[in-house]
Amino acid sequence: MTARTGRPTLAVVGATGAVGSVMLQILSQHADIWGEIRLIASPRSAGRKLSVRGEEVEVVALDEQALSGVDVAMFDVPDEVALQWAPVAAARGAVVVDNSGAFQMDPEVPLVVPEVNPHAARVRPRGIIANPHCTTLSMIVPLGALHAEFGLSELVVSSYQAVSGAGRAGIDTLRQQLSLVAGTELGTSPGDVRRAVGDKTGPFPEPVALNVVPWAGSLREDGWSSEEMKIRDESRKILGLPRLRVAVTCVRVPVVTAHSLTVHARFEDEVTVDRARDILATAPGVVLFDDPAAGEFPTPADVVGTDPTWVGRVRRCLDDPTALELFVCGDNLRKGSALNTAQIAELVAAEWAAS
Amino acid sequence: MTARTGRPTLAVVGATGAVGSVMLQILSQHADIWGEIRLIASPRSAGRKLSVRGEEVEVVALDEQALSGVDVAMFDVPDEVALQWAPVAAARGAVVVDNSGAFQMDPEVPLVVPEVNPHAARVRPRGIIANPHCTTLSMIVPLGALHAEFGLSELVVSSYQAVSGAGRAGIDTLRQQLSLVAGTELGTSPGDVRRAVGDKTGPFPEPVALNVVPWAGSLREDGWSSEEMKIRDESRKILGLPRLRVAVTCVRVPVVTAHSLTVHARFEDEVTVDRARDILATAPGVVLFDDPAAGEFPTPADVVGTDPTWVGRVRRCLDDPTALELFVCGDNLRKGSALNTAQIAELVAAEWAAS
Ligand SMILES: NC(=O)c1ccc[n+]([C@@H]2O[C@H](COP(=O)([O-])OP(=O)(O)OC[C@H]3O[C@@H](n4cnc5c(N)ncnc54)[C@H](OP(=O)(O)O)[C@@H]3O)[C@@H](O)[C@H]2O)c1
Ligand SMILES: NC(=O)c1ccc[n+]([C@@H]2O[C@H](COP(=O)([O-])OP(=O)(O)OC[C@H]3O[C@@H](n4cnc5c(N)ncnc54)[C@H](OP(=O)(O)O)[C@@H]3O)[C@@H](O)[C@H]2O)c1
Repeated sequence: MTARTGRPTLAVVGATGAVGSVMLQILSQHADIWGEIRLIASPRSAGRKLSVRGEEVEVVALDEQALSGVDVAMFDVPDEVALQWAPVAAARGAVVVDNSGAFQMDPEVPLVVPEVNPHAARVRPRGIIANPHCTTLSMIVPLGALHAEFGLSELVVSSYQAVSGAGRAGIDTLRQQLSLVAGTELGTSPGDVRRAVGDKTGPFPEPVALNVVPWAGSLREDGWSSEEMKIRDESRKILGLPRLRVAVTCVRVPVVTAHSLTVHARFEDEVTVDRARDILATAPGVVLFDDPAAGEFPTPADVVGTDPTWVGRVRRCLDDPTALELFVCGDNLRKGSALNTAQIAELVAAEWAAS
Repeated sequence: MTARTGRPTLAVVGATGAVGSVMLQILSQHADIWGEIRLIASPRSAGRKLSVRGEEVEVVALDEQALSGVDVAMFDVPDEVALQWAPVAAARGAVVVDNSGAFQMDPEVPLVVPEVNPHAARVRPRGIIANPHCTTLSMIVPLGALHAEFGLSELVVSSYQAVSGAGRAGIDTLRQQLSLVAGTELGTSPGDVRRAVGDKTGPFPEPVALNVVPWAGSLREDGWSSEEMKIRDESRKILGLPRLRVAVTCVRVPVVTAHSLTVHARFEDEVTVDRARDILATAPGVVLFDDPAAGEFPTPADVVGTDPTWVGRVRRCLDDPTALELFVCGDNLRKGSALNTAQIAELVAAEWAAS
């Protein structure tokens, strides 16, 4: 317990990054439950001042000293930095909430979505809790709610992923490419967009302006991408369904922020659209936005910058009374990353306060 | 039989339209099997001259006279014009190949894809053959080839549909919207793209630049769109599988031309990726483009302006040895419309020549 206020001390490791910046906004907007908030980054950033809760706070370099006396440490840093330093923070008594890809599939590290499996956060043999990948997070809250009622047996998922999933470089690349293609007649003959974009493809293997690119992540076995495997493995782990059938194809689209996904979800029992809509309308963290006659279905343009997962186009499969079709959309930089990390940290803080 | 060359007389009804224009290009590129090619449109266009096979041909107005002595009549006109005039052409002895939505689901009208069900073109009680919808056509050729080997039992399809599926107005709308968003920081706060685009949404219910829109067509029962129902009904009819399980979600993306689809295809028997790749590599009208390690997978930017259906990302479902995942991509203005109509007309011409 910190002396200053009897509230837990929070460290934000990676406070200067893309995710870290959104985190500081969220910490400033949410109920103020923290004592000291310590901002940590690489030695490059030591001495910079950043604003959080309306105060200027000086960034310190990541070392053992910086992790002393910390109750909860959020890690928003590259995988290799998290791999090295999260265990150090845990050894010094902090509960680590890690937003990198370093621990998501570690069997001794729980993977937590507070609306779906909050209980899992309490069992953390390594003192580390992992935050799921942004694409998984953009769909898992409504699926968790439907699973609790109907029992999920299979998912077929296709993604429409925003460029900011590839960080600041992804956004800059799309904007640069759009400047090259806007006001032209491009997009009508083979390779014309590719020639206009040249080598300015940034973190993507193909031009993303006026295009869609069926690839995200690195190559894994049998033609699967790492991102597709992640969505399968993480969905199974979060839902506690180690044998859930999951098929995924990941596709990048020219959208700045907010991932969308089509989901074909099959359940153990027959489903009805009315009951599914009731569940989605009342599930925490979910907005049901589904009235096509009135032009209502979620799109990234409306969802960006908001906290919940939006769900529309709810239909029962015409040929299978156990399956639902959904279109889901969530902000990959909020629920898909910083917001979920903040929510996990708040769970831990509540446990800390009650202990 | 026409006197001039002993070759069949072709009428192109709707020669001045978007599809008609691509048709005249295709007729100029393909082997010249036709006698007279008569160009027909509304009275508004009568007297205009259009180029086909390197000659200038004068457009005549659609009436009974214009349809006399025609052996094959392609209809590339709005539904209501086809509904009225296709039976007139058939009554006067022409075989009609209709590219509108008027007859696709008529049980007395075959729905033909020459690579998949050429035999169906011979049984045409009304003298009319229908061309499938562009979204169905953008995926059905490789699926027909896989079905012939493995026996298809279920499809789960998500589309990434280009704006030219909504005609010239769709293309103009995307280009206008891109000019409004390029060079800005838009796409990062709720509704910012919508405000910039204002009422310039054209044929789409929402902005399509920097966005994806999960809607195509009109509202049918239980929340399904007409386009989603079409893909289901047409796939069943073309493949001759009236009880095939088909689930579809249609999504518009900011691409000018070439529809893409993710396909989860389940078969009667176990499949192997090697055998699937063999089939796709040799199937007529299909290009297998699938080597992610070398950066090879189809994207609209490469596929636009080409004739075949491109297939990549071929994977066997990790949790179901009877299912394959595919990413397919085809030009909706070529195979998706004018090219398939031309191919059907060529089948009929071959039959005519042999009779
Ligand atoms: N972008 C997304 O949508 C997203 C979503 C979910 C999860 N994530 C994950 O979140 C993590 C951060 O991503 P990001 O997009 O915020 O990356 P970023 O913008 O590159 O920020 C990286 C942060 O890590 C710090 N850092 C780098 N090396 C360090 C070191 N050796 N010691 C201490 N701090 C170091 C950087 O500090 P300096 O400024 O001092 O270099 C910076 O604060 C990554 O693991 C990423 O995979 C990203
Ligand atoms: N765009 C696509 O991707 C696509 C794909 C597959 C199928 N289709 C279908 O193909 C058909 C044509 O589409 P489109 O995009 O080419 O449309 P379009 O550009 O609007 O062209 C319509 C054509 O129909 C003619 N026409 C209209 N009213 C007529 C009348 N009363 N009598 C005679 N001719 C008349 C027009 O002649 P004038 O120039 O004289 O008006 C013009 O040649 C539609 O049924 C459409 O659904 C379109």
